Amino acid sequence: MLITEEKRSALHGKDLITTQDWNREELDQVLAVASELQRNRYDNRWSRSLLNRTFFMFFYNPSVRTRQSFECAATELSGHAQFLEPKAMRLKTANTAGETIEDAARVMSRYACGIGIRILEDQIGYYGAGDELLREYARWSEVPIVSMAHDKYHPCQGLADIMGIQNHMGDPKGKTLLLYWGHGALARSWCSVQEALLLYPRYGMNVVLAHPEGYDLDPAVVAASRQYAKENGASFQISHDPVECFADVDLVYARNWMSPQAYRNGELQKSEEIQKALAHSEWICDAAKLKRGNDPFFIHPMPVDRGHEVTDEIASGPKSLIIDVAECRLHVQKALLALTMGN
Amino acid sequence: MLITEEKRSALHGKDLITTQDWNREELDQVLAVASELQRNRYDNRWSRSLLNRTFFMFFYNPSVRTRQSFECAATELSGHAQFLEPKAMRLKTANTAGETIEDAARVMSRYACGIGIRILEDQIGYYGAGDELLREYARWSEVPIVSMAHDKYHPCQGLADIMGIQNHMGDPKGKTLLLYWGHGALARSWCSVQEALLLYPRYGMNVVLAHPEGYDLDPAVVAASRQYAKENGASFQISHDPVECFADVDLVYARNWMSPQAYRNGELQKSEEIQKALAHSEWICDAAKLKRGNDPFFIHPMPVDRGHEVTDEIASGPKSLIIDVAECRLHVQKALLALTMGN
Amino acid sequence: MLITEEKRSALHGKDLITTQDWNREELDQVLAVASELQRNRYDNRWSRSLLNRTFFMFFYNPSVRTRQSFECAATELSGHAQFLEPKAMRLKTANTAGETIEDAARVMSRYACGIGIRILEDQIGYYGAGDELLREYARWSEVPIVSMAHDKYHPCQGLADIMGIQNHMGDPKGKTLLLYWGHGALARSWCSVQEALLLYPRYGMNVVLAHPEGYDLDPAVVAASRQYAKENGASFQISHDPVECFADVDLVYARNWMSPQAYRNGELQKSEEIQKALAHSEWICDAAKLKRGNDPFFIHPMPVDRGHEVTDEIASGPKSLIIDVAECRLHVQKALLALTMGN
Repeated sequence: MLITEEKRSALHGKDLITTQDWNREELDQVLAVASELQRNRYDNRWSRSLLNRTFFMFFYNPSVRTRQSFECAATELSGHAQFLEPKAMRLKTANTAGETIEDAARVMSRYACGIGIRILEDQIGYYGAGDELLREYARWSEVPIVSMAHDKYHPCQGLADIMGIQNHMGDPKGKTLLLYWGHGALARSWCSVQEALLLYPRYGMNVVLAHPEGYDLDPAVVAASRQYAKENGASFQISHDPVECFADVDLVYARNWMSPQAYRNGELQKSEEIQKALAHSEWICDAAKLKRGNDPFFIHPMPVDRGHEVTDEIASGPKSLIIDVAECRLHVQKALLALTMGN
Repeated sequence: MLITEEKRSALHGKDLITTQDWNREELDQVLAVASELQRNRYDNRWSRSLLNRTFFMFFYNPSVRTRQSFECAATELSGHAQFLEPKAMRLKTANTAGETIEDAARVMSRYACGIGIRILEDQIGYYGAGDELLREYARWSEVPIVSMAHDKYHPCQGLADIMGIQNHMGDPKGKTLLLYWGHGALARSWCSVQEALLLYPRYGMNVVLAHPEGYDLDPAVVAASRQYAKENGASFQISHDPVECFADVDLVYARNWMSPQAYRNGELQKSEEIQKALAHSEWICDAAKLKRGNDPFFIHPMPVDRGHEVTDEIASGPKSLIIDVAECRLHVQKALLALTMGN
Repeated sequence: MLITEEKRSALHGKDLITTQDWNREELDQVLAVASELQRNRYDNRWSRSLLNRTFFMFFYNPSVRTRQSFECAATELSGHAQFLEPKAMRLKTANTAGETIEDAARVMSRYACGIGIRILEDQIGYYGAGDELLREYARWSEVPIVSMAHDKYHPCQGLADIMGIQNHMGDPKGKTLLLYWGHGALARSWCSVQEALLLYPRYGMNVVLAHPEGYDLDPAVVAASRQYAKENGASFQISHDPVECFADVDLVYARNWMSPQAYRNGELQKSEEIQKALAHSEWICDAAKLKRGNDPFFIHPMPVDRGHEVTDEIASGPKSLIIDVAECRLHVQKALLALTMGN
């Protein structure tokens, strides 16, 4: 599909806090440009779209993939991603004097062509506070705000997933996803799995959401996912059986996440969550369980907690998409920066 | 004014530790280029002046605006600002073995086209030690040293102030500045206010310096400011009245700063200074006081300590220049890097 | 020597973990390009060889020169060196869940054109563990791995040394190196001195290795150095006399290093090493001792521990190569990145 100049301008200036805020046509435009950039990584028509421009990366939480891929993305578009840690920013909080988000966002808008923000569970006092913070930045900023993962969503991971899936499975419509809770020692975020749960059924995938009792995801997210499935002629079901849920699936996404009881008294109870999760040792994606599926692909946002979420054999196996999907982070983010912030 | 090649070379290689070291013509040259860059931010005749060049940013203290604006400035000139924290540099100190400034500066000169340094009160043992450190770097460096704020001065803030003032007030000659001590919870630096006090009267502004008893600024700075006012046909006065001082002023600069007693036994007594400052709650810039002036503009180097130094109503109000002045940091710094370090 | 396209491709994709893994022709090719880049630093045929490309710099340990020079090198080749601290990477260790090197290296290969790694003694549990880590990265990475100094070797320092020596001494064949243990308060790495010991005799230099009893270097390195000397018609001797060893030498490399007893129970005993080293106060390179040599040059990888390893008079004196060699770091690293990673 040829992306015309008119369509480019439609996305210019647009925030991306979750893929839910964008329609299918807009998402497909990002994916189309990302594919073009994957085929021709350097020296393409977007190569100079951030020339002399700065993209601010705000890391309330440290990051592996996200920092590497966003900073590379800006470089490959001839721009520069500036790595910022808000702890150096003396921002105002409930307990300390400091700068307001109004002031920070208004000034940053004068310097940068866009602002990425990452804030995860352990930097906030309750579920949803990270999403509120991003929307507060978006309120004051004159340039696009992009989530680089926050407590509720991780839109760039969702887009990379879809790109990787399309590359390996073709059109995923009618294929079945198993979104599988893996046990583990890391007490992981909800953002990637919630983004997947919301996005995949929009591409027509049937959803099997499997987790132990007590590990429900955000009810609003689950309801929206169910609704997306319905609208797209797909099925939606929830399972609490760590083995049977693999029946007839085409794609397994195995990942740990915390329970809804993770916060108590305004603090994340991380070690308690880890202890609780490790008890469910039957919840691991392994070769024996995968035999119940249709020779399914394996997907994961990385870093993988090998031996807990999934066995080494599967994570490094021939059906694993993890490295290719991680590569897609670069392409979708380049497309996103070029389309929403490029000159 | 057309900046000729001859004038460019006159600034090439020049340190900027305080605007006091530069004459008016030199400062005006920076401001003229900065205006040109504001009108045409990208794709101008300076766009490639740092191509493949590195500007080192040395942050003994963390920073918000300064880091963002310098790093953007280098990017917009096609160069790269390298973010360095001297704590990783194993420099020699009174108590530890390590590298001398001679060695550090001589090698850095071989790598970079210029070096910016930021060192504030809490990283030194007495007032003036930061200025000495910058001058020691300048002694050994073969490339320009730029202050990115140090204990005594903040020349880039001063230049951004003047640019913002000229943009909004035209020629400020004959207009009256109120440099006003605001109470606050941050025990702030002297550098920005001292740079303002020294620079604004050189542009012909009358000065009213207002603060509680016991908050005198560096006597040498005050004397120089008074002298500059005299030379430029402007008035200079000091007030200890938090309300009357607003009479007939055209511009209010409200900012907290520490007392001359801030150091004791070679250490900054920050919490003591905060406690002492918070007692002066009548020292806040608010709408009622501003009514005594000539519908004055409000200026501040940011981050603003809202509710202490100034009310929200004024800081976010129609006469507030804070965001525009913060933007000017980018333009004056681009001009400075291009003129002193550009190829 | 004209570097033909065929020779360029011979180095493309090659790891550099120690100069021992490369033959003389390959090393000379890097040095030839480095000289070309020194004569014409900007706007040369390599200026765009990393255009839009990212070089990852992994600092398990902080760094002065290495970070500055690698980041400048990438900038001068139109690329970007991304500064990464593995502590933010949640890598798997013996005691914690996290990402495997397999996963980290495979994904980084998709983003970057090359990966530099620095890991020194205090980040590992035994001598050699750093070298093993680099080789594990090299096993999984699809792009070149470069040592930015690790426990055993420091190839870029070695190459910069040779370049500086050739610039000042011409062909060093037949000249005599004194590699001299200096006492000091920093308990320094073996990597730079071991790289020198292995590399200089390949360029035909006679070697005098001088240190107090109990400060033997890695026996395999000493044996290899002795063998290289033999193959290149040079002599090799070991001395424990802090004064006599200076007789007739042409070049003095004075540097502290730790004893082979530095590790105990899997931990580096740094303060114990410092205490032990400081007792050998006669081991310092000074003017009196240098009089025994042939008006020798002085070389050191910096940062210099002045007053311990060497006197100020010599470190800042007319025969000191330290600043020029530090500059050569930039040139050899540019050549290395261009030849192994450039497009």
